[in-house]
Amino acid sequence: MKVYPEPMVALMDELGKMPGVGKKTAERLAYYVFRLPTEEAMKLADAVREVKTRIRYCSICFNICETDPCELCSDARRDRKTVCVVEEPKDVIAIEKMGRYNGTYHVLMGRIAPLDGAGPEDLTTEGLVERVQRGDIEEVILATNPNMEGDATALYVAQTLEGIDVKVTRIARGIPAGSSIEYVNSAILADALVGRREVS
Amino acid sequence: MKVYPEPMVALMDELGKMPGVGKKTAERLAYYVFRLPTEEAMKLADAVREVKTRIRYCSICFNICETDPCELCSDARRDRKTVCVVEEPKDVIAIEKMGRYNGTYHVLMGRIAPLDGAGPEDLTTEGLVERVQRGDIEEVILATNPNMEGDATALYVAQTLEGIDVKVTRIARGIPAGSSIEYVNSAILADALVGRREVS
Repeated sequence: MKVYPEPMVALMDELGKMPGVGKKTAERLAYYVFRLPTEEAMKLADAVREVKTRIRYCSICFNICETDPCELCSDARRDRKTVCVVEEPKDVIAIEKMGRYNGTYHVLMGRIAPLDGAGPEDLTTEGLVERVQRGDIEEVILATNPNMEGDATALYVAQTLEGIDVKVTRIARGIPAGSSIEYVNSAILADALVGRREVS
Repeated sequence: MKVYPEPMVALMDELGKMPGVGKKTAERLAYYVFRLPTEEAMKLADAVREVKTRIRYCSICFNICETDPCELCSDARRDRKTVCVVEEPKDVIAIEKMGRYNGTYHVLMGRIAPLDGAGPEDLTTEGLVERVQRGDIEEVILATNPNMEGDATALYVAQTLEGIDVKVTRIARGIPAGSSIEYVNSAILADALVGRREVS
């Protein structure tokens, strides 16, 4: 039976390994690559290569970066006494976009998700513990996602920091600004009630 | 505002150009690439490169191949008097998989789809006309898809072959084997009625 030429099959195989890319999508993408102008295809191949050769983890915060330490860790204007712990580099970007946080970060590079086979050993907590033990840090803000996995991860990080003299906080959960009580679900409302604060 | 390191942004940009890949998916895929073992990532980069350098169009049937003419066109056991015209290389594979066709192919490498900006000039009909004019071909089977675009394409190909002494046929439309009259839609039923054949 006739199949695709070997280089096409090889590309489909590699593309098909990507998350969320099934056999049909891989086929479609391989065609796309084949039909690209050579220059464009080489740009794609080079981009894949460059990411592996030029990007590394920051040895302080474990965010991805080109220079180690990363821009944020080497920025003297940042408050190095506060560390915000997030799951992924994209969370750093979201918090930076907000523009109201001036501390540093620690990127866990994952979360505890037993169903996906991701355990505590996949996280970069060791680096965080070292940083905190050195004693320069006053507060660790746990900014993992407000879902089951993020909560489990936050709990785990908090436990690994037990016994060290540092303030550990968790970002607030509650009703998101701009929504209405009528429409948010019970879990959100429960969080909002449990986390209520005194009107000062 | 902090964004991703430049190589990461470059990869996201290239991945985001792929069909059906939006900004979020491109981000997810870029992470996937970054986390791949270097060897695997290089395999992906090389696969992209190889497809552009090793795959070409067959100068006879315009299918994609590594050697020109392609395996099918250079196979002496194939009936070269019959040409099956299809839209894409994957259609060749589907027909070969059936295992009941022993003729050759002509791959149009597209279809007429005005809504996607694809016109007759994007098709490889010129090569087909040359082949038919040389007089070795007795029958041209139009096996474009049984939808509006495929029908328009078949009509166009039939018109370009007008005046040349060759039999032009279109694959049959009707009720698909294994289905039931009760469930197929009106368009299919109408095709089945219009295309009815005398029971011999």
